[in-house]
Formats: sequence, structure tokens, C-alpha cells
Amino acid sequence: MKRFADVICVPAEKYAEYVEKHDNIWPSIVQMMRKAHIENFTIFHRNGYLFKYYEYTGDDYEADMKKLSDNQEHQQWLEFTAVCQKPVETAEVNQWWAPMDEIFHIL
Amino acid sequence: MKRFADVICVPAEKYAEYVEKHDNIWPSIVQMMRKAHIENFTIFHRNGYLFKYYEYTGDDYEADMKKLSDNQEHQQWLEFTAVCQKPVETAEVNQWWAPMDEIFHIL
Repeated sequence: MKRFADVICVPAEKYAEYVEKHDNIWPSIVQMMRKAHIENFTIFHRNGYLFKYYEYTGDDYEADMKKLSDNQEHQQWLEFTAVCQKPVETAEVNQWWAPMDEIFHIL
Repeated sequence: MKRFADVICVPAEKYAEYVEKHDNIWPSIVQMMRKAHIENFTIFHRNGYLFKYYEYTGDDYEADMKKLSDNQEHQQWLEFTAVCQKPVETAEVNQWWAPMDEIFHIL
């Protein structure tokens, strides 16, 4: 199992919309995330920042992520929620959620 | 089980020291965190920000946290690592790690 965390911004005027969309996430998206071996997926918020945490339990991360990114409904979900997000200033070009490094862990 | 996340800053010139201290965390600290029902404890870093994620699996969070904060060795550990940290601008007075809100979760 490998742990992942990413960060992105949510403009204040888009926060309620972002939460409302996730309160009503399309069931197909949840299903395909589980099939992609994504577990314990959580989003936290503070002061305009969103912090995403999840665990990958499969054995081919690249292949599982490609399946998600190739899926048309998944693309639609990302576009649907992307209007509520803004990459952090230090994100690379074409990077949406910006990855964080795991620097410490206790089981 | 309840999930927690907190955020704090690490000045660039203190990052290496922070990581080095956690690479050599005192075994007693790990032991007392486990006794306090803290599990899956992870710290992530990006661009001067530290995100802490953990799960609390006990049934009296306040009491377990008080045991930690009353413990002298635990206080020493916090002082030892605090020199590498700086609260985020939106932290309240006397708040060190600033709490984030869980807004979405998929098991």
C-alpha cells in the first residue's frame, strides 16, 4: 500500500458548490475509484486549501490511473468539479492537484 | 474511527532538520502515540507546508490527547521539533498545528 496526498485551492466563492457536488458524487465515480484500488480517500479543507489523502492498494498504479483518466464519465466529473478549483501557485504547468511528499509515517 | 488533518509551516532553512529529527524519532514517542490510539500517522510536505494525517481509533479522544500533552517526554519532543515549525497565518492564538475540516470521504 502506498499513501498519496495532493493540494489545490478552492476560491471562497466556490467552496459551497464544491462541497455540494461532493455530497452528491456520482455513484459511478465512487465505483471506478474503488476498481482503481483507491481506498480511504478523504478531502480536508482549511482557509481556501483542499488537501486530498488516499491509499493505493493495487499493484500497477500507472495503469489504474490511466484507466480513470481515459474514462469519459470520469473526465466529466473532473470538469464538473474543476470549476471550483485553482491549482496552487507552485503547481507545474498542466498540473492540477499538486503532489506532496510523504516525509514521515508511523503505522 | 475518526480522521484528522492539520497544517503548519516549515521554514525552508529548517526543513532538513525537521526531516532528520523525524527520521530519528524517539521510540518512546512512537509508543505513547500508539497507546493514545493514534494510527496511520503520516506527515506530507510541499513548498514549506506540512500536512499531518492520522486516525484516532480509541473512544475518548480528549482523555488520550491530555495524556500525551501531560507527558513530560512528549512535551520535550514537541519543543525539540517546534523550532522547525511556524503556525500558518490563519492559526488562532496559541494554536500550533491548525486543524482542517474533513469535507469528503470514500471508504
